[in-house]
Amino acid sequence: MGTTVDTPAYDELAGTWARMYHLGHLQALASWDQMANMPPKGNEARAAAMAEMAALLHRMGTDPSLRETLARAEQEPLDDQQRANLREMERQWRQANALPESLVQRQQLVTARCEHAWRTQRPANDWAGFLPNLREVLAVAREEAALLSAQSGLGKYEALMDRFEPGMTCAQLDRVFGEVRQWLPGLIQQVMAKQAQETLIVPVGPFAIAAQKALCEQAVRLLGFDFEAGRLDVSTHPFCGGVPEDVRMTTRFREDDFLGSLMGTVHETGHGRYEQNLPREWLGQPVANARSMALHESQSLSFEMQLGSHPGFVARLAPLVAQAFGMQPAFDPRNLHRLITRVKPGFIRVDADEVTYPAHVILRYEIERPLIEGEIELEDVPALWDARMMELLGVDTRGNYKDGVMQDVHWPTAGFGYFPCYSLGAMYAAQWFAAMRRAMPDLDARIGGSDLAPVFDWLRDNIWSQASRWTTDELVLRASGETLNPAHFKAHLEARYL
Amino acid sequence: MGTTVDTPAYDELAGTWARMYHLGHLQALASWDQMANMPPKGNEARAAAMAEMAALLHRMGTDPSLRETLARAEQEPLDDQQRANLREMERQWRQANALPESLVQRQQLVTARCEHAWRTQRPANDWAGFLPNLREVLAVAREEAALLSAQSGLGKYEALMDRFEPGMTCAQLDRVFGEVRQWLPGLIQQVMAKQAQETLIVPVGPFAIAAQKALCEQAVRLLGFDFEAGRLDVSTHPFCGGVPEDVRMTTRFREDDFLGSLMGTVHETGHGRYEQNLPREWLGQPVANARSMALHESQSLSFEMQLGSHPGFVARLAPLVAQAFGMQPAFDPRNLHRLITRVKPGFIRVDADEVTYPAHVILRYEIERPLIEGEIELEDVPALWDARMMELLGVDTRGNYKDGVMQDVHWPTAGFGYFPCYSLGAMYAAQWFAAMRRAMPDLDARIGGSDLAPVFDWLRDNIWSQASRWTTDELVLRASGETLNPAHFKAHLEARYL
Repeated sequence: MGTTVDTPAYDELAGTWARMYHLGHLQALASWDQMANMPPKGNEARAAAMAEMAALLHRMGTDPSLRETLARAEQEPLDDQQRANLREMERQWRQANALPESLVQRQQLVTARCEHAWRTQRPANDWAGFLPNLREVLAVAREEAALLSAQSGLGKYEALMDRFEPGMTCAQLDRVFGEVRQWLPGLIQQVMAKQAQETLIVPVGPFAIAAQKALCEQAVRLLGFDFEAGRLDVSTHPFCGGVPEDVRMTTRFREDDFLGSLMGTVHETGHGRYEQNLPREWLGQPVANARSMALHESQSLSFEMQLGSHPGFVARLAPLVAQAFGMQPAFDPRNLHRLITRVKPGFIRVDADEVTYPAHVILRYEIERPLIEGEIELEDVPALWDARMMELLGVDTRGNYKDGVMQDVHWPTAGFGYFPCYSLGAMYAAQWFAAMRRAMPDLDARIGGSDLAPVFDWLRDNIWSQASRWTTDELVLRASGETLNPAHFKAHLEARYL
Repeated sequence: MGTTVDTPAYDELAGTWARMYHLGHLQALASWDQMANMPPKGNEARAAAMAEMAALLHRMGTDPSLRETLARAEQEPLDDQQRANLREMERQWRQANALPESLVQRQQLVTARCEHAWRTQRPANDWAGFLPNLREVLAVAREEAALLSAQSGLGKYEALMDRFEPGMTCAQLDRVFGEVRQWLPGLIQQVMAKQAQETLIVPVGPFAIAAQKALCEQAVRLLGFDFEAGRLDVSTHPFCGGVPEDVRMTTRFREDDFLGSLMGTVHETGHGRYEQNLPREWLGQPVANARSMALHESQSLSFEMQLGSHPGFVARLAPLVAQAFGMQPAFDPRNLHRLITRVKPGFIRVDADEVTYPAHVILRYEIERPLIEGEIELEDVPALWDARMMELLGVDTRGNYKDGVMQDVHWPTAGFGYFPCYSLGAMYAAQWFAAMRRAMPDLDARIGGSDLAPVFDWLRDNIWSQASRWTTDELVLRASGETLNPAHFKAHLEARYL
């Protein structure tokens, strides 16, 4: 500070982050390969390689000299974009430095143990065996939450959530989820009663994998994904990885069901297009990153739910489905749409339809928040789970731990604070389409006429190209004229399902 | 030096090399992916990521403090394996430090320019356009050779060759290639005259790619490759990459020919098994690396030529071929063996059979060595090329630059000194099988009876497991009772082809 330097501090920082971006490219590729390609005996060496890189990136991102460089850059004349970039650098630096190394190591140890045992404990419905491991994970997570809370002034749960959804508060979440909670159980009952009256023709398999793959690729192209800058492969758990310049999406196939892979692929394509359309001229800098996990989910759900399950888009898909597997009565566009929008309360969050899904997320939030804040203990969870599932979805989960509290990998891996992002994403997606309809009253007709360009243009202009230029609230306000408003989600569900 | 340290210098070095190995894993994977998977628009970001990693690995490998640590380790009590490891560390360190950064950068610049232009100049037969670029590449290579020669005391060409084939001398090469040169043109004529008398039935295509792929995988399994620790994929230029724990082989398919992909895959499997069977307990340390490029090639050629083209092995392949494509007269084992061992002088080295192949390599050596040593200039090359091709192979190459001096990527990329490895590999492979036959007089009968274990056991014990424990000459002597002896190669060709 005060000494004359040749390179502006900001440029020095930009160089550091570009280097981390380049090295992160290799890490992202290795992670995709691990899921999509790697033979089993490659795992140990891969884990060692990725741990080495993680440690290297952590060292670079926590270099003590960054504190002074960031402070110097604050004093330099910067344009708006640079200033937003500096804000994101500071946020990353704060997060990287928030936890002492010893806590990070302890967390890695207890989550690795808990997750590993969970893989066999879950199918065995072994809650008693799972409990002591999860207790250790929770203890470390509470420690982490307390530390992050003390540093940031956020609440403990908020501080954990902030890692995934910066700026989101519990007050906002309580308001939003509290609202949804009021009308959701009633809506589910209404929709189920209505759908019980409808005729539903079930498709007859098997559905050849090669034909499913070709169909998925057609859908992905239809949705504007650039195959010159990405791929679609197969993995056990579908995801969207890689880097913005080379997006790697995956799906999985079952011979007895094609809708799972098809709609799953449509979902990942939303993530993929967000990544492919982040601002190229800023790639490598934090300001070019996707804004948050809820915003990312708002893109996959814009694709899967708002657009992909739109009757107009389904009518476009129907002939492709018939072409892939031969014509069946089930492939009539109206019937196909009924199949895709079927509502049925169930145990498993990841299998839930868009109407019942928020119930799963609200339940997780109402359990993990008091858990983190010390208001309840793990012993209280099963009874709370059973009560909430009955109240929200009318489902009896007593004694069924494997399809209940043990169903997700999030808690064993200390992913507390992540669940809300899923439903926030669904709400944002509904908000985007409401804004689009205000700007383009003929939107539904255009989607029905296979003209998807207006949707993509709106998302590109308002979300993709904006990346991390603004805070989430600012971005949402600029895009849709208001901050998060769950009324759009309610209106969407009522319009589609009632 | 002289100060008390807690960690022995050797352990410190081993830690550094293990870290470089872990990071090199990611680089190797990215390189494989670039060839086998990467969509075109991913190239720029991938190149930047790999350049960042290359720079990082270079910085780690040239860290000035290593000089002192290496010197300290020399004074420590080490066992034989550790001492061999230290010798390899020193060799790598010497090589990494041999060239000033400015020369390395200049070389990258001129080779990138030359190689890029060559891609279009070659199909256009544009020698005049190619010449100025190649002149720049040669100028830098001569500078490099002079520097390396001054440091090492080797001859200039030897010093370049030493990068690929440590320990090999021009005196040895002159003796070996000089011998081969004497008998090769005559042998080629004899073989061609003999084969002209034989009936050859050409297989009738097309050969479905899926069936070719399944056939290649069967061959790879037959040859003992562990698919739990590696993969076979497709790329434009087949290669064997990845890491010892996760070997990534590639091949390419043509619908009108199945032997190219099949024998190419058998070739890569030799590289692959060498890598998969390097000593696991030493992986990550230089002593566990494959010994040299010629030794590596001796494994691929042991598989492709010695074993894969052995009449006993071809008889094992024949029913698999018939099963893959349906029975044809051409798939009779004897005819299949004739197809695989057909000898025909041609322009292109990579398409050459095992009898004419050494002629291509000797020609390259007889041109690139005087080029590097300043005895001839690039303007002299075409005439020399034409004369040598006529003399060695009876082929007229006048005016045909694209299938002549411009056919290989080696010179545009400054790979001077690499070519000899190919034929040294073929000679070593013949020498291994001669040693095996001395140890196991029934070897050919066992191969004919599909018992390949003796071959794999011999290679594992004598080559794969030895890695870089010994210098090449020591390894060859221990494995076969003598250093490089081209008589075995001659005997092999005569036995198989006359």
